[in-house]
Amino acid sequence: MEIEELRAAHPEHWKLASAIRALAMDAVQAANSGHPGMPMGMADVATVLFQNHLKFDVKNPKWADRDRFILSAGHGSMLIYSLLYLCGDEQVTLDQIKNFRQSGALTAGHPENFLLDAVETTTGPLGQGLATSVGMAIAEEALRAQWGKKLVDHRTWVIAGDGCLMEGISQEAIGLAGMQELSNLIVLWDNNDITIDGRVSMSDKTDQRKRFEASGWTVFACDGHDPVAIDEALTKAKQAKGPVLVDCKTIIGFGAPTKADSYSAHGSPLGDEEIARTKAIYGWDHGPFEIPADVKSQWEAIGTRGAAERAEWEERFGKLSAAKQAEFTRIMEGGVSKKLTGAIRKFKKEQAEAKPKVATRKASEMVLGVINAACPETIGGSADLTGSNLTKSKDMTVFNAENRKGRYIHYGIREHGMAAAMNGQWLHGGVRPYGGTFFCFTDYARGAMRLSALMKVPTVYVMTHDSIGLGEDGPTHQPVEHLAICRATPNTLTFRPADVIETAEAWEIAMNQEGTPSVLALSRQGLPTLRTEYKPQNLTARGAYVLAEADGKRQVILMATGSEVEIALKAREMLQKEAIGTRVVSMPCMELFAEQDEGYRKRVLPPNSVRVAVEAAVRQPWDRWLLGERGREAKAGFVGMEGFGASAPAGELYEKFGITPEAVAEKVKSLL
Amino acid sequence: MEIEELRAAHPEHWKLASAIRALAMDAVQAANSGHPGMPMGMADVATVLFQNHLKFDVKNPKWADRDRFILSAGHGSMLIYSLLYLCGDEQVTLDQIKNFRQSGALTAGHPENFLLDAVETTTGPLGQGLATSVGMAIAEEALRAQWGKKLVDHRTWVIAGDGCLMEGISQEAIGLAGMQELSNLIVLWDNNDITIDGRVSMSDKTDQRKRFEASGWTVFACDGHDPVAIDEALTKAKQAKGPVLVDCKTIIGFGAPTKADSYSAHGSPLGDEEIARTKAIYGWDHGPFEIPADVKSQWEAIGTRGAAERAEWEERFGKLSAAKQAEFTRIMEGGVSKKLTGAIRKFKKEQAEAKPKVATRKASEMVLGVINAACPETIGGSADLTGSNLTKSKDMTVFNAENRKGRYIHYGIREHGMAAAMNGQWLHGGVRPYGGTFFCFTDYARGAMRLSALMKVPTVYVMTHDSIGLGEDGPTHQPVEHLAICRATPNTLTFRPADVIETAEAWEIAMNQEGTPSVLALSRQGLPTLRTEYKPQNLTARGAYVLAEADGKRQVILMATGSEVEIALKAREMLQKEAIGTRVVSMPCMELFAEQDEGYRKRVLPPNSVRVAVEAAVRQPWDRWLLGERGREAKAGFVGMEGFGASAPAGELYEKFGITPEAVAEKVKSLL
Repeated sequence: MEIEELRAAHPEHWKLASAIRALAMDAVQAANSGHPGMPMGMADVATVLFQNHLKFDVKNPKWADRDRFILSAGHGSMLIYSLLYLCGDEQVTLDQIKNFRQSGALTAGHPENFLLDAVETTTGPLGQGLATSVGMAIAEEALRAQWGKKLVDHRTWVIAGDGCLMEGISQEAIGLAGMQELSNLIVLWDNNDITIDGRVSMSDKTDQRKRFEASGWTVFACDGHDPVAIDEALTKAKQAKGPVLVDCKTIIGFGAPTKADSYSAHGSPLGDEEIARTKAIYGWDHGPFEIPADVKSQWEAIGTRGAAERAEWEERFGKLSAAKQAEFTRIMEGGVSKKLTGAIRKFKKEQAEAKPKVATRKASEMVLGVINAACPETIGGSADLTGSNLTKSKDMTVFNAENRKGRYIHYGIREHGMAAAMNGQWLHGGVRPYGGTFFCFTDYARGAMRLSALMKVPTVYVMTHDSIGLGEDGPTHQPVEHLAICRATPNTLTFRPADVIETAEAWEIAMNQEGTPSVLALSRQGLPTLRTEYKPQNLTARGAYVLAEADGKRQVILMATGSEVEIALKAREMLQKEAIGTRVVSMPCMELFAEQDEGYRKRVLPPNSVRVAVEAAVRQPWDRWLLGERGREAKAGFVGMEGFGASAPAGELYEKFGITPEAVAEKVKSLL
Repeated sequence: MEIEELRAAHPEHWKLASAIRALAMDAVQAANSGHPGMPMGMADVATVLFQNHLKFDVKNPKWADRDRFILSAGHGSMLIYSLLYLCGDEQVTLDQIKNFRQSGALTAGHPENFLLDAVETTTGPLGQGLATSVGMAIAEEALRAQWGKKLVDHRTWVIAGDGCLMEGISQEAIGLAGMQELSNLIVLWDNNDITIDGRVSMSDKTDQRKRFEASGWTVFACDGHDPVAIDEALTKAKQAKGPVLVDCKTIIGFGAPTKADSYSAHGSPLGDEEIARTKAIYGWDHGPFEIPADVKSQWEAIGTRGAAERAEWEERFGKLSAAKQAEFTRIMEGGVSKKLTGAIRKFKKEQAEAKPKVATRKASEMVLGVINAACPETIGGSADLTGSNLTKSKDMTVFNAENRKGRYIHYGIREHGMAAAMNGQWLHGGVRPYGGTFFCFTDYARGAMRLSALMKVPTVYVMTHDSIGLGEDGPTHQPVEHLAICRATPNTLTFRPADVIETAEAWEIAMNQEGTPSVLALSRQGLPTLRTEYKPQNLTARGAYVLAEADGKRQVILMATGSEVEIALKAREMLQKEAIGTRVVSMPCMELFAEQDEGYRKRVLPPNSVRVAVEAAVRQPWDRWLLGERGREAKAGFVGMEGFGASAPAGELYEKFGITPEAVAEKVKSLL
């Protein structure tokens, strides 16, 4: 349909959608950066979705039974910000829209789950939103099976673009969702035929409908600018069995006279003149950021149309027993079961007595037996290495279309898809996911693992076969740089436990995280129990501790992790025989050790001893502990980053993070 | 067909295939580790391929016009080792077969291109072989367009399993191959319906044929144990237009009485009894590693059946002019054009005079203009960020089905597929690939980037938008840990040039690599020319150098890379005004600096100065330079890994790499 025709045929819809388009154009123009074309292309679909289908109440963005809405094509962030502002979201004010992409604004360049309550997941790295949404749909199915349809009955809606679909992670997501027959998952494909380099046909000729059908999806299609056709497609999508793709044929930058249907509408402001002409074509006679009162109030009615339904839900929830309400609230908020600490202590005590020689992956399986019994909200899995990762504890049954009460997922050979699905499960709420693969294949999952850290998602990565200790499979399977990688990644706890006791302690810490993912690097090979004396305290929580003290005058400190702690202890024996006093420090988690106060760190690593570290991995993360601390470090400093960046113009970010000539000069003077 | 029937119908074929199966069972049993099921399942297909279709001459495994054979399901390595031994490969002797997976053997757990000439690419991480093969097929098309069919006319054959096809990277490969209409690419799918966790249906219900067809592939199918059916399918595959999938229905562990068609045949020895029973079923009455002379000689005839064809090719090649022969040899061996050094120097001289303020990504585009003119073998590309990565220099045309002489590839939104395809291009020979994406999205390409390093493939990764300096796109797009990741990865040169001159120097070094990949981390934002005095030497080749000397007594050394060097220089000015003598060291490549002799390193970083490093990234890689060197480092040591591991039993590897109690004790005593 031509715009004239659309305006005439659906005047009310047209105004609602135009409001989105106008805000997207204005905000990108004001920011002088951003992506106007996608919101302009998908405004009609989003309007119909919000008006007629999405179950939500804008005043209660964390309502447990809301539909989840994921903008996988995260660069089109002005679509979601416009929708939220128009609907009356309390965080996304008009000022926020005007401050799009500016320092401190909640309206960051890409949607960030940690900035806005209504943003279900951070998106931007393409394909992640789609793969994360599969995890959300899984969590919904699992919760519905446990709590019933009266409490849990919602859908996950995703807007994905061609970029999302070309990324490999999308295939893992599509395959997993198809296999799991997730009827509550609906993907709206913004089929605009444009990528950054030009037409899609320059780089892809895939028949996407056929591809989705091949994995068991149902496919519908519509003209993505015709509200009636869109509504019909979404209505059918809700009734289909299994996951649904809706192929929405759209025009990027819809209506822009010279830039529509072109990559030039993708990632830059349209320019004042083009905006003026576009608004004229829309029949939108309003200044920048101006929304007429009637349009705004119609949108606000949409924003609260789910309020009654939510109230009814609250009423049903209120009829549950107090204990059930508390339990539901606990799992939705991600709190850990109170039973866990006692159960772990009991386990540690038993093991300190039994002193098994087991691989830490086996130790992890033993601990999981305890955890999964104490914490009914865990959902485990593996990327097709169940018998190697030892992630399936005895009483777990398999989660699939026939058994939604199962708590174990066969993710298939899909490390990236698994990691993203775990993010989605946590973000949905109600379940606590963990999953395994070989440590080396964190390479395949990096994109989603970084998002766990950025989004503050405390999933647990059970990464076995953590060094050359795995043996014959050779260098493609032997991690050497991966500990450095995990340790270099902000907001990630990297554990490399030395025995069954440290494994239990690492798991306990990981389970208690509320905003930090954990990587457990576990051995393939058997390791003796080194902590044979039971202590209720979690020593691993300090990151490093003295495992064996020097006999006589201390001349040496050996530091090690995981399978190399045993080696350090043996070296100590040899040195002590020559009367060289040697301390052994076990360092299962550098990040936690770095967080300890200076006094503790100095007690563990006092100056003036020879220090030697032992780890079957590259040295990079060790220099700090080898060379640092008093005396050695007093004359050195650093200016740089300590965590993730933020959304703002570059110059402001350099200021914000203190990377300036002034800061460097200050640092120098402070050291002189 | 049942085995009895097959034996009776095709007795000669059966013996040839049984030889593969017997060797696979015996070698895995002797090693007490490995994967027998896959070679047993695909022995019939491989026999027909080698006997009737694959163009090769086992005595000349590096013949330029050979067909490439890729075992993407690399865990089935005994398939390729058996084939090579049987055909008479000079490296794969019977002793090598007997030493499968042992320390020092060429027959490593997974096939390694750096151990065996006939192994085209290292495989093991699933999906990589398939994605790499797409690059090989691209290289063949490109070379054929330039050199003609008489010199270049071969195919790439791939054996891929269900694991390869479930990995996301496979979709990127399938999409790219389909779009590029690579008629020289044939994938043989080992459709055995088994993964490590069990039946494929436990984790995937994808109709693979339909999925490949959706991306423009032609699909044939055959009973993977019927040699006639296999031969028909391969014959048709060679005639089809565009890439071909052959769905070979097979049984894993074919013939093993209790383990066939089960995951228990996948990754463990069958056991002596099962092997004996299997051999009886095969009618294979021979001891371990015994191949009857008639079978061996039939296989050897297969191994050399391409010798005549190769001789004819040599004759045609000999008729080329000496200059053309030399040029073909140069590009196949990966030597760099002699024109390059002079061209880069000329460029540096011009820029030192012009002193442009340009982003280093723009500087890279300028340098590429010079490189692509001097080196006709380069093939560039980008994962859909051409206008951002600035990887397409002016005169490049696009490589696609219509223009095989094009030298620029629109890889689509496929970072992982691009990186693997670049590996394949280099491994094929004749082209030198580079490709771009945002530095942050090396996360998506990690699996293949690690293989570049392991396989000694000197591709160039043009990674722009290298820090928070990219601004508004926010933390999902801002690398902070990625420099640490690249620097932690063995055999990888990580460059972060500070201006146009260092960018040219980094490119020159990268182009001269024969066995090391380079990552160029380039700024989005403009940077001034800092090296305004022309010097013909490549200062970046030393890794770090004194960019600005202290005025007066030196008290401080500032170290920086990339966009932060300008900041360091400004800080120096401020400090010098307060009479604090300050040296600035630019450190564009830590790996190269680490390789310099101690004398040079100490001249650049003398002791007794305050040292401050500036880099908009995590500190981890810097501790060495901040805290190390004389005095500071004298009392510290490290025991661990310095490069990739190897294939051998774990205990031997610990010995081999010197991670033992003895080595630790020695290290300590050497420091006392």
